[in-house]
Amino acid sequence: MEVSESAQPLNNADKLIDCVETFIFDCDGVLWKGEKLIDGVPETLDMLRAKGKRLVFVTNNSTKSRKQYGEKFKALGLHVTEEEIFASSFSVAAYLKSIDFPKDKKVYVIGEEGILKEIELAGFQSLGGPADGGKKIELKPGFVMEHDENVGAVVVGFDRNFNYYKVQYGTLCIRENPGCLFIATNRDAVTHLTDAQEWAGGGSMVGALVGSTQCEPLVVGKPSTFMMDYLSNKFKIEKSQICVVGDRLDTDILFGKNGGCKTLLVLSGVTSLSMLQDPKNAIQPDFYTNSVSDLLSV
Amino acid sequence: MEVSESAQPLNNADKLIDCVETFIFDCDGVLWKGEKLIDGVPETLDMLRAKGKRLVFVTNNSTKSRKQYGEKFKALGLHVTEEEIFASSFSVAAYLKSIDFPKDKKVYVIGEEGILKEIELAGFQSLGGPADGGKKIELKPGFVMEHDENVGAVVVGFDRNFNYYKVQYGTLCIRENPGCLFIATNRDAVTHLTDAQEWAGGGSMVGALVGSTQCEPLVVGKPSTFMMDYLSNKFKIEKSQICVVGDRLDTDILFGKNGGCKTLLVLSGVTSLSMLQDPKNAIQPDFYTNSVSDLLSV
Repeated sequence: MEVSESAQPLNNADKLIDCVETFIFDCDGVLWKGEKLIDGVPETLDMLRAKGKRLVFVTNNSTKSRKQYGEKFKALGLHVTEEEIFASSFSVAAYLKSIDFPKDKKVYVIGEEGILKEIELAGFQSLGGPADGGKKIELKPGFVMEHDENVGAVVVGFDRNFNYYKVQYGTLCIRENPGCLFIATNRDAVTHLTDAQEWAGGGSMVGALVGSTQCEPLVVGKPSTFMMDYLSNKFKIEKSQICVVGDRLDTDILFGKNGGCKTLLVLSGVTSLSMLQDPKNAIQPDFYTNSVSDLLSV
Repeated sequence: MEVSESAQPLNNADKLIDCVETFIFDCDGVLWKGEKLIDGVPETLDMLRAKGKRLVFVTNNSTKSRKQYGEKFKALGLHVTEEEIFASSFSVAAYLKSIDFPKDKKVYVIGEEGILKEIELAGFQSLGGPADGGKKIELKPGFVMEHDENVGAVVVGFDRNFNYYKVQYGTLCIRENPGCLFIATNRDAVTHLTDAQEWAGGGSMVGALVGSTQCEPLVVGKPSTFMMDYLSNKFKIEKSQICVVGDRLDTDILFGKNGGCKTLLVLSGVTSLSMLQDPKNAIQPDFYTNSVSDLLSV
């Protein structure tokens, strides 16, 4: 299939589907917006499954575990199994497994329940997360915040109960525990907590820790290729036979391009046609179209 | 006076004092540590005043106003007037005045009381700060966080009650209010809330907003030269006749060097001699010594 430098409108969905073995879908802005399913999504997924395509759902959202995210699909009437869902909460656990993170070490979490659940499922010990949401620092003279010397990794993801206690705790672990890892689920500037507005994303929590530690994190979510390599190994798929379908240029499309996959931008989420065609935008997908249901036109 | 590429020990304090008209002192780690005065500081300041030197105190601490900071000097037995103190809370107000920030616009503050007080003293309208410390976001479907369209600047400084509400509010103003400024008091990785430990500094709050807005702030504190230019204009001082005395290489000493001043590193704060002489350290003051009281040896 010919790949051009600027994105082309998807005029021949049939041809794209024929040369792809696996479709990796982003979720928010692609399948749904906030709590509303986008028109034609169930039919499109059914059609692709009927044609024998593997479907995988990769999201930078780390607030839910695979299981919890599966319930969201179900509530919207989409038939997707837990094993098809790769949220960045799961990616954290997969990354820790991939490096044989020691089971006697602990993971300090700045983030929500999903990360804690996936870390626990993978057999690792964690602390922090929602339990530290209401904590404050004391500032009497001589006060020292104690921290656990067995923390070997600090994981940072979106956290609506982000606070100074968490910043200081994570910073102490990264600065003072020898070899402590700094892992980010993603650095997204915005996220979609409600369908009515863009909300400051995981990039803000990660930015805070970068500011205080002056270290750069290892990112397991998009656009890092960690999940692409993981999927390619797990399912033995050639990356050139994968098509990444997403609504964001700097996460989804870059993720696909970084991995050497085909890329399809849908205009049903955060990116408009004028943003795509802005001369300042350097990230060009192979194809763009209004919505995933345009794949149905075959 | 000869300036060498690597820092020299201060062997001739007399010679340095003779060719300097104004001493700019950093405070924490130079005059005091936490709540404890460093030995010999009152005598040193008295001696410099007796020799007719102008003394100025410049700190990146934005949690207090000039007046509140003056009380700290007083409590420690140091005779310093409010007008000699240039905390980054004051620098914010001075910056807004310098650009004729419109009086009908508002300033949203992520930070503590000092910034609000200085902004108010300068005649500007502000919102946010401690009042937003307990606020949470609601996340029912369709929820929109409203923000004031008259906010023309977001100021970010150290804030121990930092939370997601503030990140989102500041982000909305910077992203959605045309021409809204993003001003940082400083980007210090660490600060000294207590004398027993280093604490995550203003760089973490600023990093969070950088992460969510993908914009870089205008910094009014050290090592930016805004305050140096301000002081030089206000007091009509040649920058070559200023000596900056501080304990941090990347704020104080860089501030002095960026401004073309003389620089004296004191080893009574965060920087040790081995850190100064580490081959990876590129920031070399003109001189170094153990403590400001070494200036007394004349």
